[in-house]
Amino acid sequence: MQIGMMGLGRMGANMVRRLMKDGHECVVYDINAGAVADLVKEGAVGGASLEEFVGKLSKPRSVWLMLPAAITGRIVDQVAALMEQGDIIIDGGNSNYRDAVDQAAKLAVRGISYVDVGTSGGIWGFDRGYCLMIGGPDDAVKHLDPVFATLAPGADTTSPALAEGTASLGYLHCGPSGAGHFVKMVHNGIEYGVMAAYAEGINILKSANAGKRPRSADAETSPLSEPQYYQFDIDLPAVTEVWRHGSVIGSWLLDLTAGALKDDPTLKNFGGRVSDSGEGRWTLKAAIDTGVPAPVLSSALFDRFASQGESEFADKLLSAMRFAFGGHKEKSK
Amino acid sequence: MQIGMMGLGRMGANMVRRLMKDGHECVVYDINAGAVADLVKEGAVGGASLEEFVGKLSKPRSVWLMLPAAITGRIVDQVAALMEQGDIIIDGGNSNYRDAVDQAAKLAVRGISYVDVGTSGGIWGFDRGYCLMIGGPDDAVKHLDPVFATLAPGADTTSPALAEGTASLGYLHCGPSGAGHFVKMVHNGIEYGVMAAYAEGINILKSANAGKRPRSADAETSPLSEPQYYQFDIDLPAVTEVWRHGSVIGSWLLDLTAGALKDDPTLKNFGGRVSDSGEGRWTLKAAIDTGVPAPVLSSALFDRFASQGESEFADKLLSAMRFAFGGHKEKSK
Amino acid sequence: MQIGMMGLGRMGANMVRRLMKDGHECVVYDINAGAVADLVKEGAVGGASLEEFVGKLSKPRSVWLMLPAAITGRIVDQVAALMEQGDIIIDGGNSNYRDAVDQAAKLAVRGISYVDVGTSGGIWGFDRGYCLMIGGPDDAVKHLDPVFATLAPGADTTSPALAEGTASLGYLHCGPSGAGHFVKMVHNGIEYGVMAAYAEGINILKSANAGKRPRSADAETSPLSEPQYYQFDIDLPAVTEVWRHGSVIGSWLLDLTAGALKDDPTLKNFGGRVSDSGEGRWTLKAAIDTGVPAPVLSSALFDRFASQGESEFADKLLSAMRFAFGGHKEKSK
Amino acid sequence: MQIGMMGLGRMGANMVRRLMKDGHECVVYDINAGAVADLVKEGAVGGASLEEFVGKLSKPRSVWLMLPAAITGRIVDQVAALMEQGDIIIDGGNSNYRDAVDQAAKLAVRGISYVDVGTSGGIWGFDRGYCLMIGGPDDAVKHLDPVFATLAPGADTTSPALAEGTASLGYLHCGPSGAGHFVKMVHNGIEYGVMAAYAEGINILKSANAGKRPRSADAETSPLSEPQYYQFDIDLPAVTEVWRHGSVIGSWLLDLTAGALKDDPTLKNFGGRVSDSGEGRWTLKAAIDTGVPAPVLSSALFDRFASQGESEFADKLLSAMRFAFGGHKEKSK
Repeated sequence: MQIGMMGLGRMGANMVRRLMKDGHECVVYDINAGAVADLVKEGAVGGASLEEFVGKLSKPRSVWLMLPAAITGRIVDQVAALMEQGDIIIDGGNSNYRDAVDQAAKLAVRGISYVDVGTSGGIWGFDRGYCLMIGGPDDAVKHLDPVFATLAPGADTTSPALAEGTASLGYLHCGPSGAGHFVKMVHNGIEYGVMAAYAEGINILKSANAGKRPRSADAETSPLSEPQYYQFDIDLPAVTEVWRHGSVIGSWLLDLTAGALKDDPTLKNFGGRVSDSGEGRWTLKAAIDTGVPAPVLSSALFDRFASQGESEFADKLLSAMRFAFGGHKEKSK
Repeated sequence: MQIGMMGLGRMGANMVRRLMKDGHECVVYDINAGAVADLVKEGAVGGASLEEFVGKLSKPRSVWLMLPAAITGRIVDQVAALMEQGDIIIDGGNSNYRDAVDQAAKLAVRGISYVDVGTSGGIWGFDRGYCLMIGGPDDAVKHLDPVFATLAPGADTTSPALAEGTASLGYLHCGPSGAGHFVKMVHNGIEYGVMAAYAEGINILKSANAGKRPRSADAETSPLSEPQYYQFDIDLPAVTEVWRHGSVIGSWLLDLTAGALKDDPTLKNFGGRVSDSGEGRWTLKAAIDTGVPAPVLSSALFDRFASQGESEFADKLLSAMRFAFGGHKEKSK
Repeated sequence: MQIGMMGLGRMGANMVRRLMKDGHECVVYDINAGAVADLVKEGAVGGASLEEFVGKLSKPRSVWLMLPAAITGRIVDQVAALMEQGDIIIDGGNSNYRDAVDQAAKLAVRGISYVDVGTSGGIWGFDRGYCLMIGGPDDAVKHLDPVFATLAPGADTTSPALAEGTASLGYLHCGPSGAGHFVKMVHNGIEYGVMAAYAEGINILKSANAGKRPRSADAETSPLSEPQYYQFDIDLPAVTEVWRHGSVIGSWLLDLTAGALKDDPTLKNFGGRVSDSGEGRWTLKAAIDTGVPAPVLSSALFDRFASQGESEFADKLLSAMRFAFGGHKEKSK
Repeated sequence: MQIGMMGLGRMGANMVRRLMKDGHECVVYDINAGAVADLVKEGAVGGASLEEFVGKLSKPRSVWLMLPAAITGRIVDQVAALMEQGDIIIDGGNSNYRDAVDQAAKLAVRGISYVDVGTSGGIWGFDRGYCLMIGGPDDAVKHLDPVFATLAPGADTTSPALAEGTASLGYLHCGPSGAGHFVKMVHNGIEYGVMAAYAEGINILKSANAGKRPRSADAETSPLSEPQYYQFDIDLPAVTEVWRHGSVIGSWLLDLTAGALKDDPTLKNFGGRVSDSGEGRWTLKAAIDTGVPAPVLSSALFDRFASQGESEFADKLLSAMRFAFGGHKEKSK
């Protein structure tokens, strides 16, 4: 079927390629004309402006947006202004699900359907397929089924289906508008927690030789009472590799971690400033609103904030208090 | 090769079966004579007492223990008393790695090797193979290589090797005595964190319909200001299934979670008291000793403690303080 | 000066008493006519309806609301409908500061000032005075200064002033509308953290005799390896009392805790379900919005959620996973 | 009475002064001869060597040690070698309570009493008195009562006693050897939590103007959706001051915090590397051993570890995973 794709970055361009490979007709647009040209060479129909892009779509039009969350709302308004009753806007980016709830209500008045699609799979999606979590009206979601079926991984011969329906093919209609991004939001919240669990554990392994290191014996340094138990030099690439084979914690994130450590065991190409793109934050806010404890997910999120330097003033306060009550002077960093 | 196995519970018995299937000769012992008899029927050589069990082994003897951590130390002493220079004791249970460090030093004096093997794979290990994290002297570990090779999953055709050596076959010599249990300990610490990340996220999904529920408007209840954003009835079995196909958080634990939710979507067969068997605790103590932050792993551990009822007195204190400063009366549970 | 007070619960009634004792004229209203009658007997002017209440106030009118957060917004609208340019509405309850920002903008159009006053001191405020954190337009806040001065504790002879201005008297104009409730929100967020720090520590003291208790030795129970270090029966009322005298952790909350433990060392009158009234939640959301790590404050909040039973499904999931990979059966609660 | 004091640093020297002021005879020793000379000028009896120091004490001798935890054990052995039946060694430092349990058992054989005294009050103790948490045999503790009575704050006219006995005077016999340091350990664990609660909250206040700051709109930056709610420039010295007067979170640590912020509102003299001296670590290990949840105390401890740079490798791992699955490049720090 025909689909319009706007936003031809890392994710969007590869989704177009996967769709075209399976025979779909893709009309594409991006403010970066070069990105459009690249895909036109590969068989897509390109638009030189938003108007031309929308104009090249047959009715009912389906426009899929893959944009940064910070600008999606504005672009939805621009696209919607060019659309008519029966048309469909799909937001496949990492937008807040609340925007989908609000946009859907607003557009429903004009007979335009709003479909929010949480899309997981990253840069590997072109090969592996994308896991799609979909929210929106039944008829619009049904209309787009061929697109979803192509983008999703499809039947998995190595991992048997555990449920009926499309879930085992890698896409799922989760509920009304907003439900897709809600499920994707929680997916990413979980992702933060899982990632942090590996990172903390591996960091402990790295310190398994702490007993070999010299340690000051001043009052500002906690003594390591039993250094004989911290004499191990652990081979992190080998350990993460062995865990991939038969252990309880095998996962795709572990596969990637083992691969990263194999390529660069000291991770010298990274500085340790960890970005977060919103879903972890929104997951926590949902937990707070609904009164659900999420200590692991919040710890993971707050570690990222700290990695961005945001605990500095709090830490200065702690040092100031320690100096005030005990005359403790800070050791240099 | 010949191997002695003591402790024929869930894990031990299946390891014997996997070893015999691959042609190894297994001499077995358990205080439960029935467990011995069952394996004798399947081809094992049985011992009626610890002495007889050890007596049936050819030198150099190898005795593998699969016992609860609480009794392993005592049994090691009993077994060691019957052994001689050149013999090997293997602890495959969930013992504290510190015991391995201490035992190895003690037994080395008598020329007995102590090999600690962290064993992951649970009740699925018979089919999938066990992931083995091994600590101990080089010669003893090398001597036992055929046993490790059989117990481990072996070459994996669906997941390419990322490292040289045996790691990609599912077993790894991690270092001197203690290193195996240290790595397994951290493995389980990570496991707690990963499990909790899924559990918290799925719990949030379950509350996605909080806006539909009635809510008191008294001063002891925090208002839900925007109920319109919590109107989703999420199908948990379907969502956990779709995440298995192409998403970033795919894992074996997710496979098991999706399976459990498919069989029993409300988990009515569980009460929510979560045991912990020690490794999570020891992981945290190692983090504390070495000064490594582990907020996610500790949150996961403390949630288990709380599920065992151990936050009750602290919570009563909070209610007592609230009553003391604000006259707040507790709502009933 | 004259002030109208609406909402004569625990806090509101005592504030009226403190104001009247210092010579202010109080006009009072509550939907509970008995609460009005009680204060009329003590010298207040009562209103039988909202209209009569507002009608009895001289211009410019000042109406102070002490209401549950869940209904404050609605009542502000009703009161505002009866007011005119130059009048002032004060919200002294535990409302979300965002409501103050929004209400202030809305009412400013009609020339009505909105002042938000975070009020701390609980049921002790009548005697000790209330700590007031104030947001709103300069002129309105200045106009109300006599009321703030009376409600606040005033000069403290035992604790020297550290800053210029009214802060040392116990009230502070923190900024424009919303700033008062923002500061009070964070105050309560901190309160949750401080309370939890005491509660967790005292809970650990209570378990200092764990080595004396019998302990199962099954695979589902983590062994206590060194029971000789947990043989202390700590006298909790005495310890919390001694900490009040010269220690670094002396505080008013500790005073209250020591008092509560003296009266009821086992806290048998409490069940351990800890309510939260919103500010802790909003504090966390502000931390999340602004990217500030708040692991301690969030842990304190999530413990309250857990005390309300909200971790149950997550814990069932953990037990279900443990059963799935290891055949672990739950111990009974 | 006569008392020997060894270790004349910040704490020890001032304790000697407080004791002499109240008429006690102090014999003092330190490896730093200048520290001895200073106190001799003020009336103390000095020892030039450990032997001379012990030799100048009348029997039964009482030697109080105020030393860094890392060296206390070694010094106790040296002192004990010079002592006889009936003598008393007091450890007033921040030692692990386990050492007290072990030392007491060892010395009891020789009839020497071991008294562990947790000492809180910091550099302010000379004026305010020290809060003393005492463990040890009844007779030795009774013998030392005059010393404890002098060091402790004594009767407090502004804060009424809540319990019988010496607790209201600021010292308490908490139980057998080890109990004093156990209670002090938990005291410090709580202290970490309380400090962190203030620090996190004040850090949030500092970010209350986040809506005024420019923010990137790229896919690596989470958008701040409602900047209108983050427009407050909070005066931190004034807010911490107002909280000291009548609020629920008033405390001595808040007094110190307000003082520190008054002197240096941006805390430019601190870098944010927060030391920890052991008790917070041991508190957590006790919580872990006894199965008591301590999410707040552990979050506070782990923040300190992170402030020491120990989360760096974990954060690099997170960035490496993000790059591996999503091609996300780190923003510079």
